[in-house]
Amino acid sequence: MARTPPHPEVSQFGLQQVLEALVDPVRRSIVTQLDASGEDIKCGDFDIPVSKSTATHHFNVLREAGLIRQYYVGTSRMNTLRRADMDEAFPGLLDALTTSRARATPPPSG
Amino acid sequence: MARTPPHPEVSQFGLQQVLEALVDPVRRSIVTQLDASGEDIKCGDFDIPVSKSTATHHFNVLREAGLIRQYYVGTSRMNTLRRADMDEAFPGLLDALTTSRARATPPPSG
Repeated sequence: MARTPPHPEVSQFGLQQVLEALVDPVRRSIVTQLDASGEDIKCGDFDIPVSKSTATHHFNVLREAGLIRQYYVGTSRMNTLRRADMDEAFPGLLDALTTSRARATPPPSG
Repeated sequence: MARTPPHPEVSQFGLQQVLEALVDPVRRSIVTQLDASGEDIKCGDFDIPVSKSTATHHFNVLREAGLIRQYYVGTSRMNTLRRADMDEAFPGLLDALTTSRARATPPPSG
């Protein structure tokens, strides 16, 4: 349990921090993949074109903004989309970013 | 008419560019003020804590992303929120950013 990183409560979510997290296309792709999967995803199982250390940075930014919850299963760090919490704080925001045209934004090239 | 600056069509709107425009708190404040007013607003009449030249930059970024339409009345540059166009391109996005809690984000301090 001591290994579980800290997570903000819904009342602590800030729109500025959430938008700064979501403006990055790799981070938006992580959110979109979690939304599309409907299940938790291991850090190593995302389809993102960045190194492991860069990915870790992106996961931290998403977690600190309140977009994802992270927990360990053995040595795997798992990621949950905090959709209900985000919907409570900023209704409609995640929906707007995960609809068809928004999803169709070309993936980052590198 | 020659003085009317260029504007993208709805089909040219890109989510990345729109989010990069909206991640800035001053630019988000311009959008929120236009949304709250329900009327077009002169560049000089916004309540934003930046110099005129910085404001001009922010208006350009918003116009190029498709968020506002600009036109002249005499020597005044007027701004219209392109809400219908944004709602067509990214349904729910502007709504999510102009609801009560999103609006309650503290204004930028400088």
